[in-house]
Parts: sequence; structure tokens; C-alpha cells
Amino acid sequence: MLRASSFGIPTDSLPTGENNLITDVPGVLVGHATVETERHRTGVTAVIPGPGNPFTNKYVAAAQVLNGFGKSLGLMQLQELGTIETPLLLTNTLNVGLVHDAAVEYMLRLCQADGTECHSVNPVVLECNDASMNDIRVRAVKQEQVFAALGSAGKEFQLGAVGAGRGTICHGFKGGIGSASRKIELDGREYTLGVLVQTNHGRREDLIVGGKTPFAGQDGQACDKGSVIVVLATDLPLSSRQLGRVLRRAGAGLIRGGSFIGHGSGEVFVGFTTANRMPLGGPAAVPLTVLREDTLDIAFRATAFAVQEAVLLSMLCAGGEFDRGGRWVPGLLEELRKL
Amino acid sequence: MLRASSFGIPTDSLPTGENNLITDVPGVLVGHATVETERHRTGVTAVIPGPGNPFTNKYVAAAQVLNGFGKSLGLMQLQELGTIETPLLLTNTLNVGLVHDAAVEYMLRLCQADGTECHSVNPVVLECNDASMNDIRVRAVKQEQVFAALGSAGKEFQLGAVGAGRGTICHGFKGGIGSASRKIELDGREYTLGVLVQTNHGRREDLIVGGKTPFAGQDGQACDKGSVIVVLATDLPLSSRQLGRVLRRAGAGLIRGGSFIGHGSGEVFVGFTTANRMPLGGPAAVPLTVLREDTLDIAFRATAFAVQEAVLLSMLCAGGEFDRGGRWVPGLLEELRKL
Amino acid sequence: MLRASSFGIPTDSLPTGENNLITDVPGVLVGHATVETERHRTGVTAVIPGPGNPFTNKYVAAAQVLNGFGKSLGLMQLQELGTIETPLLLTNTLNVGLVHDAAVEYMLRLCQADGTECHSVNPVVLECNDASMNDIRVRAVKQEQVFAALGSAGKEFQLGAVGAGRGTICHGFKGGIGSASRKIELDGREYTLGVLVQTNHGRREDLIVGGKTPFAGQDGQACDKGSVIVVLATDLPLSSRQLGRVLRRAGAGLIRGGSFIGHGSGEVFVGFTTANRMPLGGPAAVPLTVLREDTLDIAFRATAFAVQEAVLLSMLCAGGEFDRGGRWVPGLLEELRKL
Amino acid sequence: MLRASSFGIPTDSLPTGENNLITDVPGVLVGHATVETERHRTGVTAVIPGPGNPFTNKYVAAAQVLNGFGKSLGLMQLQELGTIETPLLLTNTLNVGLVHDAAVEYMLRLCQADGTECHSVNPVVLECNDASMNDIRVRAVKQEQVFAALGSAGKEFQLGAVGAGRGTICHGFKGGIGSASRKIELDGREYTLGVLVQTNHGRREDLIVGGKTPFAGQDGQACDKGSVIVVLATDLPLSSRQLGRVLRRAGAGLIRGGSFIGHGSGEVFVGFTTANRMPLGGPAAVPLTVLREDTLDIAFRATAFAVQEAVLLSMLCAGGEFDRGGRWVPGLLEELRKL
Repeated sequence: MLRASSFGIPTDSLPTGENNLITDVPGVLVGHATVETERHRTGVTAVIPGPGNPFTNKYVAAAQVLNGFGKSLGLMQLQELGTIETPLLLTNTLNVGLVHDAAVEYMLRLCQADGTECHSVNPVVLECNDASMNDIRVRAVKQEQVFAALGSAGKEFQLGAVGAGRGTICHGFKGGIGSASRKIELDGREYTLGVLVQTNHGRREDLIVGGKTPFAGQDGQACDKGSVIVVLATDLPLSSRQLGRVLRRAGAGLIRGGSFIGHGSGEVFVGFTTANRMPLGGPAAVPLTVLREDTLDIAFRATAFAVQEAVLLSMLCAGGEFDRGGRWVPGLLEELRKL
Repeated sequence: MLRASSFGIPTDSLPTGENNLITDVPGVLVGHATVETERHRTGVTAVIPGPGNPFTNKYVAAAQVLNGFGKSLGLMQLQELGTIETPLLLTNTLNVGLVHDAAVEYMLRLCQADGTECHSVNPVVLECNDASMNDIRVRAVKQEQVFAALGSAGKEFQLGAVGAGRGTICHGFKGGIGSASRKIELDGREYTLGVLVQTNHGRREDLIVGGKTPFAGQDGQACDKGSVIVVLATDLPLSSRQLGRVLRRAGAGLIRGGSFIGHGSGEVFVGFTTANRMPLGGPAAVPLTVLREDTLDIAFRATAFAVQEAVLLSMLCAGGEFDRGGRWVPGLLEELRKL
Repeated sequence: MLRASSFGIPTDSLPTGENNLITDVPGVLVGHATVETERHRTGVTAVIPGPGNPFTNKYVAAAQVLNGFGKSLGLMQLQELGTIETPLLLTNTLNVGLVHDAAVEYMLRLCQADGTECHSVNPVVLECNDASMNDIRVRAVKQEQVFAALGSAGKEFQLGAVGAGRGTICHGFKGGIGSASRKIELDGREYTLGVLVQTNHGRREDLIVGGKTPFAGQDGQACDKGSVIVVLATDLPLSSRQLGRVLRRAGAGLIRGGSFIGHGSGEVFVGFTTANRMPLGGPAAVPLTVLREDTLDIAFRATAFAVQEAVLLSMLCAGGEFDRGGRWVPGLLEELRKL
Repeated sequence: MLRASSFGIPTDSLPTGENNLITDVPGVLVGHATVETERHRTGVTAVIPGPGNPFTNKYVAAAQVLNGFGKSLGLMQLQELGTIETPLLLTNTLNVGLVHDAAVEYMLRLCQADGTECHSVNPVVLECNDASMNDIRVRAVKQEQVFAALGSAGKEFQLGAVGAGRGTICHGFKGGIGSASRKIELDGREYTLGVLVQTNHGRREDLIVGGKTPFAGQDGQACDKGSVIVVLATDLPLSSRQLGRVLRRAGAGLIRGGSFIGHGSGEVFVGFTTANRMPLGGPAAVPLTVLREDTLDIAFRATAFAVQEAVLLSMLCAGGEFDRGGRWVPGLLEELRKL
């Protein structure tokens, strides 16, 4: 299991899931497809909420937009109906349209395969801007990569400069994909809450590691642009409203790591629970389970801590490299070792 | 049973509850206290969601603000937690503070009586501006009236110029309190959805009665100020998010009656379900029941129709009278008969 | 000039702009591209807010979602920043991804042509589901059609079954693209407010024409699905918040025409003003002009009336035809004449 | 001038206003009235936005609710119209109704004095729960205290256990009222942004001081209840939407100080600018000035830093004392000195 403490960085005391990954939530799978050419360092990352066709048995979900300066797609319906009906896809900013179209194709085939009539579906596509590493104006992520990411999804997956995180920069260091999970006990039963982050935000001087700002004074970036996406999964029984409250605390994780939620940065958080489903047909009345509101505090803390650690891991698992303009973007680990 | 059709006005074909009142929803009670002096024609109306202490077993609820130019209190917490924990109180605009304070006192006593510790409670107080009929700057509604309205609440209650509707004006006619209900069948089970309105909105020339605008050209009011409050109760099993969607259709009822949702008018809709409760203590996991989203359409239509009829009844049950400036505010019924 | 009254249907008394079209707002252009094959009746409609590159001098804008069950793209950034930076594009539900990608390409070329650095842009793509007339699962609208719609945009444009309205159905009749405009005088100066609608909502029995429901009892559709998009343009000096208030009254236009804002229908309203711009660079302080809040009432009424007439015109300008399943979808005009 | 650094705690490098107080923003005044009896330690704090009657020339304003579990009043109209028209008042949770009523009386008198017709006004009343120190069920703050706070308002005012902060507890230490300000230069002109906080949130073990958690392991409170209110004032020319974005970063200040935005804590942020006013009458068109969106970053940082320091000062300026149950609530300064 990979932890920030594996790199000598102190972490919180909440217990992690089995692998400290979002896939510790039973059923959740993650897959990447990376585009790596002279011109492109970009990709796509897929989060599959569980087995089966999500269109026929939707997952209760929510979204929170802390800073809406971003191009994520599909949040309107998610917020109206409180469900997701497709896997979640992460990619680069200008590629969201093509990835959306690929997700439509994927879902139509899934529905055709199991005989579900489908002429309307709402993919959720999230993004960060990797233009420093990727010639973003040529949309390099095609249907092929989207299908590859979805097809290769599993419980184990790589962190760092991979998939949708291949070309991102976080706090002036090479960023990428991070993940973490926490276990929560309620009524004597154990639940898991996991997050996956695509990190592309923050200034170097602001980065907080173990309570310190080791790079204060070293401005690695004039301003805080880019974005950061948080995907949260859990098997806690929550309503869409409650998931929204939990997701709002993802911001605490980012800020504890040094973010000021800069203007140029789109902070978008999407989450789902595998414990509550909304079927496509059947009786009108559907049983759900929710939590007594005052028991949510532990989920709030778990979210903040998991996001904070996942952001660090996204950097710690990525090495330094030159950007398209020939500027060196260092790896966090190598720079921490220099201190 | 009072219906718009009792006055010769065609209505929709959905079946009403037993008395075409919000109190057709089992457990719901309504009470009025009216202040009637030379200086004041105002009052307070209370909607009690059900038996027992709502603080210890809260009702799943929602609010929708179509036009927020108003002074209603308590919506912030209602929207965050998706519950109400007190009766709903309606009164005049400048009296909301005192009525809020009285509601706090009422709840503290209720909690003391059943031994519930309480040092924080969120009353919901809604309002319309009755300044034409009431010297609103002297806040005439005191704790005594609030307690009287709550104490006298029952399944039967008066419509028209009474309680919080004593001094309101709607579409240039004497307005007041209206109510209506509709029955809904799902999975072979019968549910009820009821509304109570406090009407103080609209222009005379815009009023739509039976599809016609009988007073077009007769401008009874320079602009659409005032407000309108809709309280919705149901025993349909809904989540807070779903109740919010249902409540949004209250606007359809107002608009079908001729409202343009004027700038000066605060349109505020609050609703609750008696079918889903959130207990103060006990196990963390709480079972709820919701509806499959696509079965909501009938609740949307029921809401629009019930609001449309309730607004008409608020006027049809009120007679004409002079306002504080000596201007005649006619009763709708007498004017319709002149046509 | 085309008016509902040209077809014998009474309209409101507010004066229209020159052609009763959204393009009466100076600078605004509209273009269509229609896909017409055995398999497809669909297309794309473009609304260009004004001359020049909108990315370098953004238009103050707002969006209102009355029912978020839809797939429109780009609203998150629009709501965060209160601006649009691209033309608005309307198309069919499953085609939004490809149209988004085409809009990205269009904007990159526009920026390249005038030397503006651009590696992030937020297209706004709106949609209705035309699956009854169009084999929607094959996304027939390609970059070619998007560029054609944008390239052919002008002050004059066709209404009815054209562009993004080619395959839509409204209140059980053939729907499509509608438009209307109203003139508003304030401080002795004349302003214009115009709307364009893509209509795909409502039940036949609910349709209100001239205050009547001529098709009551004739159910043309089991439930109210589909969607309706309203694009609003004006040269009134408004802030984004004020535009949001104006847009909320688009719902009044739909409801006055008989809509109940059904569950399956996504009601999405987007608007912009040409009077307030946000430049990409230059001094930090930017002068804007807004309206005193209480003068908005006339804009609210103009919006409701224009939307109501535009919806009617979208149907009145479209003839009947068979859908993909061989069911006759009548034209409204022919059916009205039969009465 | 009082700074966190006066107590040996490192602060950020942004320059403060003249006194590091919200009143550094020209025109802004603050006053307290404290209730100090055997039974009560509570009070009221007033923030006056500027000279003259705010009802006749309203201040552009915004509100952000990070956690809506609270009883603040008046936010609905503030968010709809984007203005405040009264001073802002802070008090204890159950006293908001009486303080609201007192604010109504204050405004009616203000309007009567200058001959402004007023029969509707929207006071904004904010609150924290001081039940540990104050017998909150007896609402001890009356009109007398509200008028006293307003009447005594000045550029200088006390921090710590005073006014609305008399009885609050923050991170397990005695909390209260804090304030801080920052200077911002744009286009060669100097602006000021100031905050005032009422602190009643957080757990002792979570408190971050100078990047460290000196009380980790010492649980001073079982859970994070209470609340925290942030009032922000500035002379930066902002729209209501932009102020909303700035206010959202107040959360960064709280979280940088160790808050997890607990369930039981209502985090409510209200802000106004003195640079943009909305007059009650006059021409329809009103000129405003706003900032180019990408220049907001410095205001975001200033807000986070000012809130972080103000929270610390609210504790550093308050000494320890026993709560109503006889439990010692230490002062932060004395505890820091013990380390």
C-alpha cells in the first residue's frame, strides 16, 4: 500500500482501506489510457462505479462546484436527479467533447448488449488543462483511448503521471492522478470512503507538506491556474443531499495542502454511493438508507484527509520532466530530498 | 367541500382529497389568529406537520425560492439539512422577527414538556406584505397570537381574509388564505398532496379565470408587488431533492392563474412529507422511501393544479373592503358576478 | 414579420422588434444547418452574440435551469464567471459532444486568425431529444454542419422544422425553432429583448392557444418528455445576476402556453446582453451599466410574452410529418384549422 | 495595531490596512453591546457599512453558505437582489428574532428621520450558539442592546469576548470577535479588504497555529459544533457575483486554521462593497465598476489570510473562564505560553 508516510510525510490517524485507493470501495474500478507522443502527453482515466449497466440501476450521486471556471460536462442532470448513469471520465480540457461522444457510444453499446432501450444518456466528463505538457489544441484523446481506459479498469491502478494526469502540474511540481481511502465504523459496521484526484492546481510557494511550506519563496508559477478534480466513492448509505455535504469537505483537503482555490482553477467534486441505487423500472416506491445527519462528521474528516493525502500522492508518484516550453517541472520527491 | 367550481369556475380533472384542504394530508393541522383593530388587519397562520414534537422526529422538507425578494426566515437550514423541525408560521413582512421569537418560545416549551434538551431550533416563518390594510410598522402580531394560532389548529380552518391572509391583496382583489388538495395513486396505493397559499401578488388585468382574463384593461395595481407563499404537504414518500422538484411546479400554478412573478413579489415555496422522518437519536442508518423519478409527473401536475385552485379560493372566500387609504379593494366573487 | 396573430392567435400588447426575431437585438445573428436523410432529421442552430471574437471581449451572460434533466454543456463556467465566450449552439441530445468539439475547433481558428492565445475555451451547447424523427444513436451532426450553421448566420433565418428544430415535437405537434422579440423603453431610450426557442416539450391536451385548450381530451403523448431550450438576447444593460432573474421568467412563457415542466423535460434558459462586455486584458477596473432593480418588471413581462409567442411560432411554422415509427405528427396550423 | 505576530505567531506577507480591522475600509463602523449577568454572557455586534441611510442607497453585497446548519436571517433577499439595505447584526442563536425586530424598528426610525417611505426592509442577522456560557433559552439581547451597539459604532472596537462574541468558544478555547484587513493594489490604486469574525467552531486538537497543531491529542470538545460567521467589507469595485467568489475563499481561512467545517457548525459568510451602490430612485440605468475576473486572485488570498488571522485574534484577545457547567474554557494565549 502506498501512503504519504511511505515518503516520510506525516498523515492523519484515520485507518485506510485495504490499498489506500478509491477501489477499496467494493465494486469500484479504475482504468487509464495514456497518450504519449512527441506532441502529446495526455490521456483519460475512467472510474467505473460497479458491475453491471449503471444506466439501468443508477447510483445515487452528487456534485459540488467550489470554483466553476472549468469545462466539466454532465453536472446539470447529475444535480437535478441526484444520480450517475455512466462511468466517470477524466481527461484534458479541450478533449471533453470527444470523450463525451465516446462515452455515449460506450453506453449505447452497453445498453444494446443487455437489451435496454436507450436514446438519451448523461456522461459525466471531468477535466484539467495540461497545455504545458500537451499540445491541447489537437484533441489527442479519441474513442479508442476512452474504450481502452474503460476496458482495462481494475482494482489496481497506477498513480502519478498517467492517464488523465499524464500532463498535469500541481503546486509547481509534476502532478497527476492520486488516490486514498479511509474506513469508517458506524452502528458496528465498517464502511469505506475513497477518493481519486486529478491534480493541476496550486502554487509552489503555497504547498503545505506536514504542516510546513518548504518551498515558500520559490515561486514555481505566477498564478494558481489549472484545476483539480475530486471523484469520491463510498458504500456509506447517503442521500444525494448528504453526499453533497460530504463532497463540500473535499475543499478542506485541498486547502490543508496549500490551495487558495485560485481564480483560474476549476475545483469540481463528484461523488457517488454504491449503497443506494435508483432502478430504471419497477414499483414507484424505492427504499433507500441514509445516515442520521449528525453522524456525518466522521465522513467529513475522512474526505478532507483522503483528499489531502491523495493530492500529495499524485505528486510523490510522478517524476520531474521538461514541459513543452523546455522548462523543468520537478518531481516533488526529488525536491523534498534536496531540502 | 369548497371548490373553485362551486363558484362556477372550471377546474382540472384530478380528484381532490376529502375536503380539498392541505389538512387532507393525514396529521396536518392549520390554525389562524387574526388581529382586527382600526389600525390593524393582519394575523398569523400556523401549519402543524403532524402530532408530537417535530424537533425530535423531523420531517423531510424542501424550499424553493422563485423570487427571493422577501423576508421569509429559516430557509437556510431547511435547505442544508432537508428537514423542518417546527410548525410553519405565516404572517406579515415586518412581523417575522417577533413571530420567530414566539416560535422559539413555543418549541422550547414543547421540548421542556417532553424532556428533550434543546438550545437551538430553526423556526420557519413566511410572510406577505399587508401594508395596504395593516399599519405594518407597528408589529401587531405578538407571542399571544402565535400561540393562539398554534393552539387552535385543526383539520378544519377558514379560507379568505383570515390569519396571515387578513390584510393581503391578490390580483387587485381581496386575497388571503387559500387551500386545495389532490389525490395520487401509485403502486395501487392512494396518497394526498395538499397546499396552503397566502396570496398577495399579481395585477388585476393579468388574472386568468377559466382560461380568460376577464379584467384585462382594468388596472387595479400599477405593478406586481406583494408576495405569495405556498406551503405544500404530502404523504408521498419523497426525498428532500424530490420535494424540491415538486415545489418548483408551484410556480406553474401561479402562472396559470396570471402571475408574471413580478420583481416586487417574493415567491417562496416550502414543502414537507409526512412519509419520511429524521429522528434526533438512535442508530446511524435511517431507512427512507423515495419515488422512482419518472413517477413524479403526476405530483408535478397535482401541485400546479392545487396551487392554481388555492389562489382562486383565497380570493373567492374574501369579500371587498376599503384599504387604509380609503381605496376600495373588491372581492373577486362580486366582480365576477358583475361581468 | 411573422406573428402568432398572423395565424389568428391573439397576442400581448408589447411592441415587437423590427422582425419579431432574436436578431432584432443589434449584432445578433442566427444560422441553421439541417441534416435530412432517410435515417436523420436533425441539425444544429447557432446564435452568434455579435461581431468579432467573443473570446477576447466576453458577453455578460446567465443561465437558469428550471428542470435539469438534460444534457446541455458549458453552463458551469457560464454561471461561475457570468459570461459567454463563444456562440451558442443547439443540437440533438446525443450530439452535444461532437458539437462541443466542433465549437472548440471553431474558436481555436478564430483566435488563431486574430492572434489571440487560446488553450482553453468554454462552448455552450444546448439540446433537445429528437429521437422520434432522428436515429439519434448515430450522431449525425458533424463539424461540417456546425461550421455551416455558424458560417451562414444572418439577421434573417427560418423558423419551424429546421436546424436543431428539424426533428423536435412540441405539445404533440411538429415543433422546431421559434423566435420573437419585444421593445422596451427606459429613460427615454429604446431597448430590444429577443428569444429563440427549440421546442420539444409538452402534451397535446395541455396546449393553451389564446387562453383555450383546444385539444383537451386528445392525448398526443403519454407524458411530457423532450425538452425546451430558450436563448435570450438583449441590449438592456444588465448584470449577470439580473439576467438570471429575467431568464427565470422564461418559464412563465412556457407555462402560459400549457407546459407543466414535466419530469422528462429539461428546461434550460441561457441569456446574454450585448451592453456589458468583459475584456480579456486591459485595466483591472471595468465599467458596467446595470438597471435599477425595480425597472426589471417590464423585461420580465417581455420575456414571458416573447417565449410564449416563440413557442407557438415554432409549431405554426412547421408542417405535419410521419415520425420514424410511422406515427403522424400533425402540424399545429392544420389542426387548428380543423376546429 | 494588533496582529497575530504581536503574539509570536507568524503571518502572511500581505500588507494590512491601518489598524488591521474591518473598519480600515473607509466608512465602515463596528459597535458592540454586551450582556453580562450571572445568567448571561452574550451580546450583539453591529457592522455599519457606511454613513447615511443604507435603505436609500443600498450596498452591493453577497452571501455564501459553506454550511447552512445555522439560523442566520435575511440571506434570501440578499442573494436575490445582491444588496444589503441595513447594518449587519451578529448575536446568539435564539436571539435572532428579537434582534431582527429591533433592526426593523431601527430602520423605520432612520427612514422616518430622513422622510423615506418604508414599509418593508430586510435586516441581516447572523449568529453563533453561545449556550455554554449563556442561558440562551432566555433571549437576553433586547432592542436596547441592539440600539446601543449601533449607537456606539466607531472605527475602533474591541476584539475577543465582547458583543456577539462574549460567550462563544473556538477550537476549545474562549473565542469571540476577531478582525483583520489587507491592502490590495490594482491599476496603481490602493484598496482595502477587511473581515470581522464571530468564532464558535472547531476542535482543540485540530487548531493550526503557525502550521503546527500544538494541541493535537488534547480533545477539548467531542465534536465540532457551534458556528462561525465572517463579515467581509471592501472598497474594491465588485459585482455581487464577484463578491460571492471572494467570500467563498473565507472558507480557506477557516480551514487553514484547522477547521473541518463540521456538521454542527454553520459557516455563513456575508460581504459588501462600498464601491458600488444601488439607489432607491433615479434613472433606470446605474453605472457600476467591476474587476476583470483574473485580477481577483489577490482578493482571494487576502480574504483567506485575513480570516485566518482574525480567527486567531478572536481567541488571542480573550482570556479563559468557566462555562455554565463549571468547565474551564482556557484562553489560547495562556495555553500557548505553557507549551
